[in-house]
Amino acid sequence: MPENRRSVFFVSDGTGITAETLGMSLLAHFPGMTFRQTRMPFIDNVEKARACLPVIEQAAREDGARPILLTTLVNDEVRAIFDGFPCIELDLFKTFIVPLSQELGVPPTREVGQARRVEENALYRQRMAAVNYALEHDDGASDRHLEEADVILIGVSRCGKTPTTLYLAMQFGIKAANYPLIPEDFERGRLPGVLEQYRDKLVGLTIRPERLHAIRSERRPNSRYASLENCRSEVLHAETLMHREGIPWLDSTSKSVEEIAAKIMQIRGVTRRT
Amino acid sequence: MPENRRSVFFVSDGTGITAETLGMSLLAHFPGMTFRQTRMPFIDNVEKARACLPVIEQAAREDGARPILLTTLVNDEVRAIFDGFPCIELDLFKTFIVPLSQELGVPPTREVGQARRVEENALYRQRMAAVNYALEHDDGASDRHLEEADVILIGVSRCGKTPTTLYLAMQFGIKAANYPLIPEDFERGRLPGVLEQYRDKLVGLTIRPERLHAIRSERRPNSRYASLENCRSEVLHAETLMHREGIPWLDSTSKSVEEIAAKIMQIRGVTRRT
Repeated sequence: MPENRRSVFFVSDGTGITAETLGMSLLAHFPGMTFRQTRMPFIDNVEKARACLPVIEQAAREDGARPILLTTLVNDEVRAIFDGFPCIELDLFKTFIVPLSQELGVPPTREVGQARRVEENALYRQRMAAVNYALEHDDGASDRHLEEADVILIGVSRCGKTPTTLYLAMQFGIKAANYPLIPEDFERGRLPGVLEQYRDKLVGLTIRPERLHAIRSERRPNSRYASLENCRSEVLHAETLMHREGIPWLDSTSKSVEEIAAKIMQIRGVTRRT
Repeated sequence: MPENRRSVFFVSDGTGITAETLGMSLLAHFPGMTFRQTRMPFIDNVEKARACLPVIEQAAREDGARPILLTTLVNDEVRAIFDGFPCIELDLFKTFIVPLSQELGVPPTREVGQARRVEENALYRQRMAAVNYALEHDDGASDRHLEEADVILIGVSRCGKTPTTLYLAMQFGIKAANYPLIPEDFERGRLPGVLEQYRDKLVGLTIRPERLHAIRSERRPNSRYASLENCRSEVLHAETLMHREGIPWLDSTSKSVEEIAAKIMQIRGVTRRT
C-alpha cells in the first residue's frame, strides 16, 4: 500500500459528471500522487447511499489511508449516510449553497423539481438542434442556412474543426459550421466565395505540420495528402491566406477542445445559447 | 433594480467551463432569483484580472446588490486582485485545495505545468479518435471495427443516438457506434444480423412517440415517416423487439444527454477512457 495512492469517489444524486470534472482539476494540483477515481452516479436514496459504503471501505483498506469523497447530494438524509465515515468529504453543494443562501436571503430548494426538468428538456432540444446543425454543415457540406451560424470555422483538412463545432453545440448550444481550406482556395488566393458575406463569423484553425502529418497518416498512410511536405505547404498557405484576409485564427496543436471552443467564443463575442 | 436579480461571474485562469457548470447547478437551487451570468475565461495575469473589475462593478451598480464571483484561479497574486472587492466570492480552488493538501500531507503545485499539458494533449487525441469513431459508425454506416466499440446504441431513427455517441466520445473518450432499428428489422422480428455477436455491447434508446413525432416533423413535415401513427408503431415495435431480445434500454424523452450517457455507462459497466 504505497503512501502516495488515494482512492477518490465522486458521489452524486445526478450524473456526477460536474463533480468529476471539478475533482480532476483539483487533483491535478497534486502531481506526485496516484489517484484511483470512481464516479458513483444517481445516488438518490438512502439505500443506494448505503450500498456505496462497502466499496469505499474496501478501497480505504487497500490504500491504507482515508478515501476522498467529493459529493453533490441535495437530500440531507442521503448525505447523512456518509457522516462519521472515516473519509475526507468535500461537499460541493453544502459548502457553497449555505453562503449563497445567506447572501441572497432566500432558502435553497431541496428538490430540483419540475421547473428545472422542463427547462433542461428545452436546453437539450436546443443543444441537439445545434449538434444537427454542426453535422449538416460539416466540412462545407451545405451552404444553406449559413446565416443561422453563430460561427464558421475554416482551416485545412483534419486540423480539428469537426470536434470543435460538435463541442460548441453540445456544451453551449452554439451553431457552428465548418469549411475546409483546400488547394483550389490557395491557388485562387481567396476565401471560398460563399464565405465572403459571413466574414464576421469566421474563425481560422491551424495546427503544426508535424502533428497534421501524424493525424493524416493514421487515415491515409504514405499518401501525398498525409506527407509532411504537403502538410507544411497546406498549413503555410492557409495561414498566409487567413493573415492576408484578416481572419482571426488560433493554433489547435496543444490545446484541449474546451480551450479551443472558449477562445473561439471570446474572439467572436459569442455566449452560450442554452 | 429588482431585489431578486443578481449578477454572477465565473472567473477562471482556464476556460471557466467547469466553474460555470458547477455554478449553474448551484444557482438552480434558488429558482425565485434571476441570475445574469458571465464567464470570464483565461484570466491568467494581474492585468487581465484588473480589467474585470469595472465590468463587475457596473453590474453591481445595476443590480443594486453585491455580485457573486465563482473563481478558479491558481495564482495567488491574480486572485488577490479580487480581495476586498464588495462581492461574495466562492473560491472553488482554495476552498478544496487547502483541506486536500492537509489530508494528503503534500503541498499543491501552483503551476499546472508541462506534465499536465502533455497529458491533456494525449487525452485530446484519444477523445478525438473516439469522436471520429462515432462519426464513422453513425447510423449503421460501417460494420468495420465494431469489435473496438465500447458500446453500441440501437433505436428508431431520431431517438437521440447520435448526440449520445458524440457526448460519450467527447466527455469520456468512449467509442460508441449506433445502429438504427428499421421496419425491416421489425418484420424479421430480429436484431440486425451484424449485431448478434456484440450483444454484450448493446444498449437500446427509446423515446415517447409524441416527442418523436415532433422531432421528425421538423425534418419532414406531413410525411408518413413523421406521422404520429407511424412513430407510435415504430416505437412499440422497437420496444417489443428489445424486450424480447433482452437488450437493456432507456427512455431519452425527459433526460439530458449527460444523464443518458451516465446511465449507458452504468448499464454496461463502461468507465471513462481518458
